[in-house]
Amino acid sequence: MTLPVFGTAAIERAATPRLVLDAVRGALIAHAERRTSVPPPLHLRFPDADGDCHVKAGRITGAADFTVKIVTGFYRNPGAGLPSNHGVVCVVSARTGRIRAILDDQGLLTAWRTAAAGALITHAMARPDATTLGVFGTGEQARLHIDWLAGLRPIGAVLVHGRSRARTRAFCDELTARGRPARPASAEEAAGADMVITATPATAPVLQAAHVRDGAQVTGIGADMPHKNELPPALFARAGMIATDDHDQCLDHGDFGHAVRAGAAAATGDVPAGLLLSGPVERPAGAVTVADLTGVGALDAALASAVLDELTR
Amino acid sequence: MTLPVFGTAAIERAATPRLVLDAVRGALIAHAERRTSVPPPLHLRFPDADGDCHVKAGRITGAADFTVKIVTGFYRNPGAGLPSNHGVVCVVSARTGRIRAILDDQGLLTAWRTAAAGALITHAMARPDATTLGVFGTGEQARLHIDWLAGLRPIGAVLVHGRSRARTRAFCDELTARGRPARPASAEEAAGADMVITATPATAPVLQAAHVRDGAQVTGIGADMPHKNELPPALFARAGMIATDDHDQCLDHGDFGHAVRAGAAAATGDVPAGLLLSGPVERPAGAVTVADLTGVGALDAALASAVLDELTR
Repeated sequence: MTLPVFGTAAIERAATPRLVLDAVRGALIAHAERRTSVPPPLHLRFPDADGDCHVKAGRITGAADFTVKIVTGFYRNPGAGLPSNHGVVCVVSARTGRIRAILDDQGLLTAWRTAAAGALITHAMARPDATTLGVFGTGEQARLHIDWLAGLRPIGAVLVHGRSRARTRAFCDELTARGRPARPASAEEAAGADMVITATPATAPVLQAAHVRDGAQVTGIGADMPHKNELPPALFARAGMIATDDHDQCLDHGDFGHAVRAGAAAATGDVPAGLLLSGPVERPAGAVTVADLTGVGALDAALASAVLDELTR
Repeated sequence: MTLPVFGTAAIERAATPRLVLDAVRGALIAHAERRTSVPPPLHLRFPDADGDCHVKAGRITGAADFTVKIVTGFYRNPGAGLPSNHGVVCVVSARTGRIRAILDDQGLLTAWRTAAAGALITHAMARPDATTLGVFGTGEQARLHIDWLAGLRPIGAVLVHGRSRARTRAFCDELTARGRPARPASAEEAAGADMVITATPATAPVLQAAHVRDGAQVTGIGADMPHKNELPPALFARAGMIATDDHDQCLDHGDFGHAVRAGAAAATGDVPAGLLLSGPVERPAGAVTVADLTGVGALDAALASAVLDELTR
């Protein structure tokens, strides 16, 4: 039998928002309950081509499949008219070891699970009556987070802060044209929204803790390496609740780790984000709440397996 | 563009013995010259299904491609009529990170590169006039080693020692029927040949050093984990030359490591096997020579890339 390969068109048809949200919610809960295993990734560097390759495996205990994801970033590609990132997800049976299929997803599944996780956690931790949304960043993750969150709760004004004025304008125009009213905003304005999402590659805080209002929820999803940093330690010092998608990862290379090293948060001061998804969250009244998400490999397994089941049923 | 997948039929057509030997020879030399990189493998265990998964990457510096190999072993599969092992090799461009193709090889390429390496090293280290071949083991690697070595030099009698009398008989009959005269032999007889290859999963030495003749070449390819052992330390103590395919690996989980820990060989007493392939080997006259091969990931990259070039040109 030929090994099946599914491309982006098939994957986009199969992966409805409900399927993605259900798979990601289940995986975040499983991860919080320690029912996942994610071995250290394998890493290759290609300094001559300014490239790297990460291979990540993920597994939910007892699930029928696990995944091995190969992701490359070659940062001179755009100069030759090629995308920087490539990758595939191999879905493997956890019962027989047979390779079930290759999802040639061009990074779609990783983007979706990242945005679904950010939207789910933001929704769970925000006040029920929170409506305004401040977004830092104008990239794919910023756009996806807005769309996924809007699928979970009504959103009022979207205030977007980006480094490039022109790009931020174009980003807001595109959102508005799709019926999601958005406008460029200063960092102070965006930080003052009911819900704040930072989705940038920043290496220094993008907002000031003083600009965040009491009762707001702030979710940082950009920090995925030790040198990256979006949220200031002072915000963590003020927070009534801190959630992390993976305690060890966030301590090692998330904004939470920066805050702990700065003495602004206790290393044991976080709760597993997934635990907040299984029922209503008891929000500390009037407090700022913060989520630090660094990306969990077990989400790949859950999402790819669900997509493949949909594609082959 | 759809990601191409090639199955075993296409791979078998493309991978001529010359192509395999050239790719493996080049990769062994590159590895000996430290022009390869092989990051630590990624490993998942599935105790409930008696299964495991290894993900190995390999790369030759400057080569156009690298590979990521996924190999699973689920040892209860035969009970359900399935093979124990599954796997694929992903060939990735080292210039752009693009996934060039998936080789759905069912482990063929790994088997071939292992046998090609063993045959090449045995041929290079054996006396030019060596003809008799002793083989320990009756599995796929034993058969492949005999075939590949016979492609490199004339072979006289093949003396096969196996644990099962019936299986050894059938193995020899099959070889003989293909025009490669072979007969079952005692361990002492097989160890007394001009060239000796051990290709077993043994956990204790399969031959006695005293039965190996002066001037013989002994190649062990079965030890790929710390608890495995085919060649006795006393053989290494007697050896005029010891070659290893990877010094660190052989020290960690090869027969060479067992000999070093037993005090029978110096930890620095080996030469890189690949160095013996670039020109005529100066054999210590009349001495026993030994090669310990544990498998080098960079060979996967070289072979898969060569096969894919052949398939797509």
